[in-house]
Amino acid sequence: MRVSASPCPLGTHRVIEPAGVLPQAAWKLDATPVAHENEILCDVEALNVDSASFRQIVEVCDGDPARVAEHVLALVAQRGKHHNSVTGSGGMFIGTVREIGPALAAICDLRPGDRIASLVSLTLTPLHIEHIERIDMATGRVWITGTAILFASSIYAKLPSDVPDAVSLAVLDVAGAPAQVARLVQPGATVAVLGADGKSGVLACAQARTRVGPSGRVVGFGPDADSAGARFLRDAGYVDAFVAVDCRDVPAMLASFPDVLPMLADVTINCVNCAGTELSSILATKDDGTVYFFSMSTSFTAAALGAEGVGKDVTMIVGNGYAKNHAAIALATLRERPALMDYFVTRYGSAAAH
Amino acid sequence: MRVSASPCPLGTHRVIEPAGVLPQAAWKLDATPVAHENEILCDVEALNVDSASFRQIVEVCDGDPARVAEHVLALVAQRGKHHNSVTGSGGMFIGTVREIGPALAAICDLRPGDRIASLVSLTLTPLHIEHIERIDMATGRVWITGTAILFASSIYAKLPSDVPDAVSLAVLDVAGAPAQVARLVQPGATVAVLGADGKSGVLACAQARTRVGPSGRVVGFGPDADSAGARFLRDAGYVDAFVAVDCRDVPAMLASFPDVLPMLADVTINCVNCAGTELSSILATKDDGTVYFFSMSTSFTAAALGAEGVGKDVTMIVGNGYAKNHAAIALATLRERPALMDYFVTRYGSAAAH
Repeated sequence: MRVSASPCPLGTHRVIEPAGVLPQAAWKLDATPVAHENEILCDVEALNVDSASFRQIVEVCDGDPARVAEHVLALVAQRGKHHNSVTGSGGMFIGTVREIGPALAAICDLRPGDRIASLVSLTLTPLHIEHIERIDMATGRVWITGTAILFASSIYAKLPSDVPDAVSLAVLDVAGAPAQVARLVQPGATVAVLGADGKSGVLACAQARTRVGPSGRVVGFGPDADSAGARFLRDAGYVDAFVAVDCRDVPAMLASFPDVLPMLADVTINCVNCAGTELSSILATKDDGTVYFFSMSTSFTAAALGAEGVGKDVTMIVGNGYAKNHAAIALATLRERPALMDYFVTRYGSAAAH
Repeated sequence: MRVSASPCPLGTHRVIEPAGVLPQAAWKLDATPVAHENEILCDVEALNVDSASFRQIVEVCDGDPARVAEHVLALVAQRGKHHNSVTGSGGMFIGTVREIGPALAAICDLRPGDRIASLVSLTLTPLHIEHIERIDMATGRVWITGTAILFASSIYAKLPSDVPDAVSLAVLDVAGAPAQVARLVQPGATVAVLGADGKSGVLACAQARTRVGPSGRVVGFGPDADSAGARFLRDAGYVDAFVAVDCRDVPAMLASFPDVLPMLADVTINCVNCAGTELSSILATKDDGTVYFFSMSTSFTAAALGAEGVGKDVTMIVGNGYAKNHAAIALATLRERPALMDYFVTRYGSAAAH
């Protein structure tokens, strides 16, 4: 969704100080609960505070829920957004659309009353809290009475009624992965997924298995062949092989390739949650192949210099958390695969996301 | 070039300690000057020590050339490679092919006697120094008598006789840029180049101008409209417009787009030499467009979260220093453009590269 009407689709008109910067870089936003012509005003139900931010706040408040509530209230009153200045991070919100500005009403797929999850960071979202209802100290979910503003450029997902909220949020958190895999992977291809047994890895394997078809091949790599994710991948048939290996261990990775990837991979998806797996990803990929780094632990220079160091002509892509329709694709990935839905409900159904 | 014959094409057979790692991760390599069956033995003429590494060594040696020579000699004797343990960097070498292993001879485009520049880091290149002849304290070039080994996976470029060495090295240092631009840019496209007036930026603009043709458009961005590079780009007609702007200043970049990029760019090439230009690059690019980050100052997370934060569905590519034939493409970019050759000879012809 993008409109070029004034006010600014990126929300610079909401910046109070310093003048002229974008909302994420701003110290303070104007969170007045009124929808300008290209804004969406939402009643917020809960904040899912980013885990790094929540941990820091809990520590400062000695684990006392009442003090955490005061801290969040003061922070948001001061900055007009939930932007933790220590960790630099925010989170996302769940809420209900109250009003859609006239410039957006015709081109936006939302209607007042729709339940949504914001998929842009709270660090750039104007937020006004009237009251904090309750805090789940285990998960960092904060139930509030308050409002938030979405800009024309902000992304969001409608929360489906047929999927538990916690599952939707768990999936939406990594929605880019299945969408990008669906784009990149061709029928008959060989796909390597590093960190295959984690949340984004399982979704990537499921999507890749469907895309490559019977003539293709999906190989998962992860530290433990007996993890819940690894067992599920094999039981569901989403991988043709699962290699138990520390993906940072380049020689061990190389040693496994003759058996499981004799011609190497056309597409390698990196979903690992630790640093130091760039070279393994590059070496798993054939010349002219593609490496998709979905892991936020990826080092740009390790990837760039790693490929040069081994003389490998591969296309390396920075995982974009956003792709058109990524939320719908991610939820469809679950809906079309009852076993995968069951796995997600069992594993994430009772916990709040983030 | 890649062969699967043993010994290992990545050179693990040259690792002395710790066992099992790749040459770059190794503490010590075996630099014995004998070509194994899939290796190339070279007589080294000069090392171009990486500037960060050279600065550190000069400081430790109080700027005394004799002590710098001793330091380099001791370092290489200890590790079997020029791998500065403080900076982690190395450099490259210039030399002449002495012997090519039998498994490579048939498939390699080199012959004994060819002058080459290595395009892989000295941090992974077995190096044996008999004698240090001379050191250029201004540029970090170290003339030696000695030998180096190239592995089957190592990349190199033949040094042409029609181009001054210093110019070849300056161009080969950024050879990935023109090769990637030639691949990515289509006739009729609009291309934005950030950091257009630097070494890689000028090459990128020249290649982009040819690729887009008369119906396309190339727009350069850089801090100073009067820099030598900016003046050259306009005089040579490589850019349709040059915008004098600090590429980190997102609002200033945005303000320039209606005039110079009314429909935004199909391809954006980032050649900037400072941090903080990821969001500008993303915002310059249209939806479904491509951002190519050639700058080593790029932050992976700033790129990934930046695109998500503004809801932009662009493909972001990690600049790979290597692409097939990149050295030949880079040198051809100069040879086919006499004005560009003149500019490089004037600007880089008398200085050693790196």
